[in-house]
Amino acid sequence: MIGVLLIDHGSRRAEANAQVEDMARRVALLLPAGTPIATAHLDVCPPTIADGIGQLLARGVDELRVLPYFLADGRHLQEDVPGQVRAALATHPQVRAAIGGALGPDDALAELMLRRAGLTTASPT
Amino acid sequence: MIGVLLIDHGSRRAEANAQVEDMARRVALLLPAGTPIATAHLDVCPPTIADGIGQLLARGVDELRVLPYFLADGRHLQEDVPGQVRAALATHPQVRAAIGGALGPDDALAELMLRRAGLTTASPT
Repeated sequence: MIGVLLIDHGSRRAEANAQVEDMARRVALLLPAGTPIATAHLDVCPPTIADGIGQLLARGVDELRVLPYFLADGRHLQEDVPGQVRAALATHPQVRAAIGGALGPDDALAELMLRRAGLTTASPT
Repeated sequence: MIGVLLIDHGSRRAEANAQVEDMARRVALLLPAGTPIATAHLDVCPPTIADGIGQLLARGVDELRVLPYFLADGRHLQEDVPGQVRAALATHPQVRAAIGGALGPDDALAELMLRRAGLTTASPT
């Protein structure tokens, strides 16, 4: 069973940490009903990546898809996230895992920035 | 004339700083041809916000739209970006400025994360 782990960096600000929960609700609406989904922070505060993976494994997930809520593909995504995912799965060799790429760059982000600034774009046809 | 300033945080990594240029090219394709556009980093390295605004004013911009390439609406967007924009425009009272909001949270980001992880979503109808 596929399960989804949504990861952000983690912050000392509760509002920032609440964003990953908000995003998880949005992601859940795009997935088949009942798909297990959990959230985690890479750093600063729990739930950790190991916590989130533990929740998903307890629900029977054996195919993990990690969704990074990061704009850029820097050291966090290249090293830290894969390292923590590998460590959490070290004792679960039967679980397959794939880690998605950073959000940017992408045309969807360009459209969203314009929308946030009140600049309309041509409607897609 | 409307001009657009695209701002990211700024990084010591050249690849990260190149992303805002990549995003500016994508934004330009969504704007009316000839719309002046400049990029800037909030911190770490030039071009500064003052540099970017200076470029736009030199091209005759008198209505500035600032597009923040930030996921979350934290202190950088609430205080630092508006402060630097105000300072850069202090001697140009005729220029109107509006600053867009953070990218997240948004359904478009949920769709993009799923796409980056190879999870397809139902096509919009």
